[in-house]
Amino acid sequence: MAKKGYSKSDIGEMEDRFRARFINSLSGYKSANLIGTIDNNGQHNLSIVSSVFHLGANPPLLGMIVRPHSVSRHTLENIVETGYYTINSVCREVYQQAHQTSARYRKEESEFEKVGLTPELSEVIKAPYVKESPMQIGMVLCEHTTMSVNQTELVIGEVQEIRVEGQAVMQDGYIDLDTLDLVAISGLDSYHTAERLSRLSYAKPETLPRELDTSGK
Amino acid sequence: MAKKGYSKSDIGEMEDRFRARFINSLSGYKSANLIGTIDNNGQHNLSIVSSVFHLGANPPLLGMIVRPHSVSRHTLENIVETGYYTINSVCREVYQQAHQTSARYRKEESEFEKVGLTPELSEVIKAPYVKESPMQIGMVLCEHTTMSVNQTELVIGEVQEIRVEGQAVMQDGYIDLDTLDLVAISGLDSYHTAERLSRLSYAKPETLPRELDTSGK
Repeated sequence: MAKKGYSKSDIGEMEDRFRARFINSLSGYKSANLIGTIDNNGQHNLSIVSSVFHLGANPPLLGMIVRPHSVSRHTLENIVETGYYTINSVCREVYQQAHQTSARYRKEESEFEKVGLTPELSEVIKAPYVKESPMQIGMVLCEHTTMSVNQTELVIGEVQEIRVEGQAVMQDGYIDLDTLDLVAISGLDSYHTAERLSRLSYAKPETLPRELDTSGK
Repeated sequence: MAKKGYSKSDIGEMEDRFRARFINSLSGYKSANLIGTIDNNGQHNLSIVSSVFHLGANPPLLGMIVRPHSVSRHTLENIVETGYYTINSVCREVYQQAHQTSARYRKEESEFEKVGLTPELSEVIKAPYVKESPMQIGMVLCEHTTMSVNQTELVIGEVQEIRVEGQAVMQDGYIDLDTLDLVAISGLDSYHTAERLSRLSYAKPETLPRELDTSGK
């Protein structure tokens, strides 16, 4: 199939929403997560993000990008206020409700109530989990930085607690996301399920990778 | 299904490679991209990363995390040396070759040659594309920062050029990654194809999201 080229000036001339959809598609499939927070008055907030990324395993760190003037602004305010948040994987069963959290609700409205998801409390984390999520991660804020290139906020947190459906954790530590029925996002608004091709053995210069099953054997 | 809980001390006590697989699984499905670079002696380098993320559409910015002492170290050195790199989406046809670029080849060896992928040159970008990739993105380095929390490097670049199979670009700007047969990564070594559930209409407080087809209608 023939490729079409887009130059820097082509991108500059794109209509704003066209460019947003186009550029948001470039990074490939993205994780779908719901961020749960609470403010100091006890008001819950929930927002979908597609920007959570792995930063390191030891200590266990995750990063995410938040736009300060977007519908995620209450999420950022609450994280800074309390120092806590939850990351909840979105599965097929609730992806439409997860998407609906991106509507511009008022701060005194709980997205949990509005979209029909259930807050679940923890003794460790001062933020609500999403009960319907098959993988819940409790986070403490490490640092947040305003990116000088475009004034978005980089939020970095340390994992404090994980709750995951037990049978998904393989003997070697890998978590089988396919059995959790997690979804991926592409662009701004497209949701996908995934199917494993295979796991591959650790790559070494002298040999080709070997296909492994889900358990890593 | 019952959830199993893991506390901070459970995570601390995990065997290193178990923890690496476990924590790398937490963020969900990740994009699979090959980063192409060249050094000032003309030596090509290619490495797979799962950490490319969207940072902003206008200007068009992508971020990625690189571990300075990992097999990606030549990638980082070359980006800093030349100021250029390419991001090439990994499709099903080449995912095993893409994985093999993570083997620890010597700096004077080209991963293109070693794994059997074809460098493709550009007039705009001083870095090789992967010819076999259905979506190629030419990048200029904006900034790189050492993250104080764990000494990984955050690399931010601006999109200069995009080459994508034309029929995948929808009328509203969305790029149909499923038809490009892109793969996603989970954990350290698992590769997945994706299947669209649906696109969803822009969320508003008063209405529920509507399912859209691939073209956004």
